Amino acid sequence: WKRGEISCIMWTFIASLYFKLCEFIKKSWEIGVNDPRKFIHCVKVGITLTVVSLFYYLNPLYDGVGGNAMWAVMTVVVVFEYTAGSTIYKGINRICGTTLAGLLAFGVHWVASKAGEKIELIIVGVFLFLIASVATFSRFIPIIKARSDYGVMIFILTFSLVSISGYRIDELFDIAKSRISTIIIGTSLCIIVCLIIRPVWAGLDLYVLVIGNLNKLADSFQGCVAQYFEEQTSDEESNKKMMAYKSVLNSKVTEETMANFARWEPPHGKFNFRHPWKQYLKIGATMRRCASCIEALNGCINSENKTSYDIKKIMSAASMKVGANSASVLRELAITIKTMTKSNKLDILVIEMNNGAQELQKLLKCYDDGKIEIPIMEIIEVVSVVSLLDEIVVRVKD
Amino acid sequence: WKRGEISCIMWTFIASLYFKLCEFIKKSWEIGVNDPRKFIHCVKVGITLTVVSLFYYLNPLYDGVGGNAMWAVMTVVVVFEYTAGSTIYKGINRICGTTLAGLLAFGVHWVASKAGEKIELIIVGVFLFLIASVATFSRFIPIIKARSDYGVMIFILTFSLVSISGYRIDELFDIAKSRISTIIIGTSLCIIVCLIIRPVWAGLDLYVLVIGNLNKLADSFQGCVAQYFEEQTSDEESNKKMMAYKSVLNSKVTEETMANFARWEPPHGKFNFRHPWKQYLKIGATMRRCASCIEALNGCINSENKTSYDIKKIMSAASMKVGANSASVLRELAITIKTMTKSNKLDILVIEMNNGAQELQKLLKCYDDGKIEIPIMEIIEVVSVVSLLDEIVVRVKD
Repeated sequence: WKRGEISCIMWTFIASLYFKLCEFIKKSWEIGVNDPRKFIHCVKVGITLTVVSLFYYLNPLYDGVGGNAMWAVMTVVVVFEYTAGSTIYKGINRICGTTLAGLLAFGVHWVASKAGEKIELIIVGVFLFLIASVATFSRFIPIIKARSDYGVMIFILTFSLVSISGYRIDELFDIAKSRISTIIIGTSLCIIVCLIIRPVWAGLDLYVLVIGNLNKLADSFQGCVAQYFEEQTSDEESNKKMMAYKSVLNSKVTEETMANFARWEPPHGKFNFRHPWKQYLKIGATMRRCASCIEALNGCINSENKTSYDIKKIMSAASMKVGANSASVLRELAITIKTMTKSNKLDILVIEMNNGAQELQKLLKCYDDGKIEIPIMEIIEVVSVVSLLDEIVVRVKD
Repeated sequence: WKRGEISCIMWTFIASLYFKLCEFIKKSWEIGVNDPRKFIHCVKVGITLTVVSLFYYLNPLYDGVGGNAMWAVMTVVVVFEYTAGSTIYKGINRICGTTLAGLLAFGVHWVASKAGEKIELIIVGVFLFLIASVATFSRFIPIIKARSDYGVMIFILTFSLVSISGYRIDELFDIAKSRISTIIIGTSLCIIVCLIIRPVWAGLDLYVLVIGNLNKLADSFQGCVAQYFEEQTSDEESNKKMMAYKSVLNSKVTEETMANFARWEPPHGKFNFRHPWKQYLKIGATMRRCASCIEALNGCINSENKTSYDIKKIMSAASMKVGANSASVLRELAITIKTMTKSNKLDILVIEMNNGAQELQKLLKCYDDGKIEIPIMEIIEVVSVVSLLDEIVVRVKD
């Protein structure tokens, strides 16, 4: 009996584990199905690794680089990233860091070898301590952290490896030379595969993100106003749209990382060198300010203070108009960014929106009452933010 | 004459470069002076690297691990991070990733070696491709990305290195053994130095950040209300305090990273295992909602619609009271989190704040007018958010 119970428990456990595993695999698979570029990225990594391992397998290639082929493999694993920009960033950082550190370590080694064996050890140790500390400190400096955090790490790594090896290995220069050449081989392979087979551009992603966020804001804002004044039955679809502003609020770090990588990318598609990535960040910041206004507006809508139906009705038309106008300004902005042209329609829309807002204010002065104003004042607030946004975009178009 | 001009330009260039460099060094130095733990971290890295290089220099140690001592150096450079939590996270990930990948690679090597030499190469290549692709894909899965992104990278690295080496090197097992042992030596050294010499706890930093953010919110909120109703001459000091909420808005990623690392840390100070780090994230999310209300409120204050002086005066007392009450609730919350005790005063303060808000609403109903309500309704909004926050904290205290 007891044994039966135990085996029963065991089987339930295994079955639940199996179902959980299935669930997990299903969910993971969906991640890839939603964005097939992720599958392609994995295949690209697999191909690059297999190609680089040929350096080791094939005799003629092996004779060239020898055991240092390992470094090409390591480079591929570490440098190959999802977007083209980050792969190029890491590759260039790795090559520069290795080369600089190698040269410096040779210098130290040369100086130390002039002294006796005992003193050599001390000199190398002191330099290792000093350079590692200073380089580690430099990683705290914001500009170095943004541009070459990885490079500094590789610098420390290479410097310590070379200066330590210098003590025991004599043909140090040959080793360093073949190591750097394998790293260059690995990096070039990564960059080539990354750029040739269906590249994923950080710049394009940033551009799509900004346009998407503008549309999300327009949807949320219009949705909020509509729900408040029309007492729409809030189905799931419209609720989801209304909550879209939340993802805009939290997009800061994603945008900054992408803009940072986009700077490393060669011209592609509609983007050339020196594309104004920084302007996208400014638009992003303004959008976040807009989104927090919507958050506050949303809070007011959901608060317990309900306004009487009559007052709502009076304000409804004007408010809805402002809501629709602001949303169409945002959507037009999204289109101008998308097509990268200056739109004449935008100016007209902004004027319309401002007129709508002024109308609303007039209405307010006539029927002044204690409760209805919040969303309207919010709208005015959003309108001012939107016009600010507009100014920025006009600058971007230049 | 021409030569004189050139040398003049050259000297100006060098001088400006020199001044820029001085500026840069001064700024960098200030980063360290503002947080001396950063200096200590750099010294710690230097010491650990120098100690680990002894493995290479000293003969008895060298005889033990041989050329594989390199791996200990690499581990130290890569694993040693600023906070204790992230060092432990990376160290454990590195050890687990290496061990797992090593075992798997041995399995593949064993299977492949049973086949002929030609087929061996194909089997190893196919496995390398498959495992690298699948492992790369797993890095896109959110839970794996959060917990063991680094571990998976090390897994791919080790698997490819071991399976490729297996083709040429015969005493593969010995190499793998000594490599894993050097990695364990490097990791242990890192963790020991990190925990013994002035450790930097991610948990403590998170705790300080949350408390600081609560106080910042209180300052900003009170400052906003005061500026609006008292028409304070806004000096730089108070302006800086008012803008403090902006850093709260953007703290999401920092908080999440810290909470992620805090989970790996052993008990320290007032924190034990299973300290409710997730609750800090919830408080953080609520604080961000609060901060976006303050952002909207701030927008209203700075808008062009100025209310008449009389109306402001009527509302002033009640609004200021609500402002002060909310701020003191936030400050009391900060104290309760700081001392990790349940405060009785908090409940009283919340009741006071709610009373104040209701008073304000009554006042609103009496003197209803079209313009003054925004900040007040905002206050009510903030009040409701604060009471929500209160509920969360009560849960945290359990």
